Amino acid sequence: MQVKALHFDVFGTVVDWRESIARELAEILGGLGGDCDWHAFADSWRSKYQPAMEEIRSGRRGWIKLDVLHRENLIAVLEEFGISDVGDPNIDHLNFAWHRLDPWPDAVAGLTRLKHEFTLATLSNGNVSLMVNLAKYGGLPWDAILGAEVVQAYKPEPEAYQRNAELLGLESGQCLMVAAHNGDLGAAAVEGFKTAFVYRRTEHGPDQQTDLAPDRDYDVVAEDFLDLADKLGC
Amino acid sequence: MQVKALHFDVFGTVVDWRESIARELAEILGGLGGDCDWHAFADSWRSKYQPAMEEIRSGRRGWIKLDVLHRENLIAVLEEFGISDVGDPNIDHLNFAWHRLDPWPDAVAGLTRLKHEFTLATLSNGNVSLMVNLAKYGGLPWDAILGAEVVQAYKPEPEAYQRNAELLGLESGQCLMVAAHNGDLGAAAVEGFKTAFVYRRTEHGPDQQTDLAPDRDYDVVAEDFLDLADKLGC
Repeated sequence: MQVKALHFDVFGTVVDWRESIARELAEILGGLGGDCDWHAFADSWRSKYQPAMEEIRSGRRGWIKLDVLHRENLIAVLEEFGISDVGDPNIDHLNFAWHRLDPWPDAVAGLTRLKHEFTLATLSNGNVSLMVNLAKYGGLPWDAILGAEVVQAYKPEPEAYQRNAELLGLESGQCLMVAAHNGDLGAAAVEGFKTAFVYRRTEHGPDQQTDLAPDRDYDVVAEDFLDLADKLGC
Repeated sequence: MQVKALHFDVFGTVVDWRESIARELAEILGGLGGDCDWHAFADSWRSKYQPAMEEIRSGRRGWIKLDVLHRENLIAVLEEFGISDVGDPNIDHLNFAWHRLDPWPDAVAGLTRLKHEFTLATLSNGNVSLMVNLAKYGGLPWDAILGAEVVQAYKPEPEAYQRNAELLGLESGQCLMVAAHNGDLGAAAVEGFKTAFVYRRTEHGPDQQTDLAPDRDYDVVAEDFLDLADKLGC
């Protein structure tokens, strides 16, 4: 079955969230006189991402979009790092740092080539407005902003993959999931998606321990999005 | 309140469905030996659009995407025009003529200018895959493909407007509905959207009787998308 659409994980796969968040923390909280290891702060913030979504996947909470979960988690990390009196406007501005993440250097050029041959859609747990703002910030040439929010199911719930394929009018075998994460690709494969692993060896910094290599057979393994375009004949 | 996003009606406002459908009918059915007034066929097909959605808006049928309604309506119009033995592959191909509609001549240039200042989103009753294919076919530079399907509510249901604004993280007053149709704009205004009427005096052909002019006060009235860009300072 011929692949028609590429569905992209975004945080870590398309954009470098860790360096971008650390930079914004330094600017915003540093500008308020704060001083700490901003990469450690970013890592702590990100570490609360999966547990927050798990509350919703498990049914213990109803649907809540990621912007709101990010904000709740930010409040917790500020407390953890002993930073107080930041004020709601600064907290909101900092929370929207997730809307201002730099693409990896190959991302825009690779997507631009891939777009000639395929439909390119986001399949991220980030909400629609976050994805729209990231695209405008970084010049990401998506054909469609889809993902968790439009189907109200966070990856790796099966519905997140199935219903994203349906929204593009496709069978899952016509869809290629692109991610730097084995867990995401494994879940997509179970739903019948084709899979492409892209190496992002420094997503979690110089000492990254996870997702350093594909842990099973994928349809494509690529060094970056330019290599992915090469391998898909674009 | 400052407008952040422009939400576009698509059929008739962005694309010339009538000429495009008539052309495809002539090619596909004419190619099979059919001969009739293809514009009349297109008009009959389109006349079944609102009644089909009304079955869903009223709750008499559950959610069904527009591609399926279009196909049901096509079967009815073929019968009405006495055309038989078309075959499922041709019917499917013809149904997807709605995915291959030409933009009005000013549309791409206007949207390209507007995109520098605003988020551009579809707010059409067409399903996501239809909108994605139209965009790729015509080069329409949307930031987001939203609309009825992602919120499972057909315009002019209030939810269609409200939940499209929410998906962009906006208050309704930050949203400008752009349409060539008074009914759509009136419904959007009730939900707090700003409104822009764009003249499309030949959407229904040379003898068009409806929507020839704005029938109430809108925030903007524009000759076409280039004039809209001028009036919004883009």
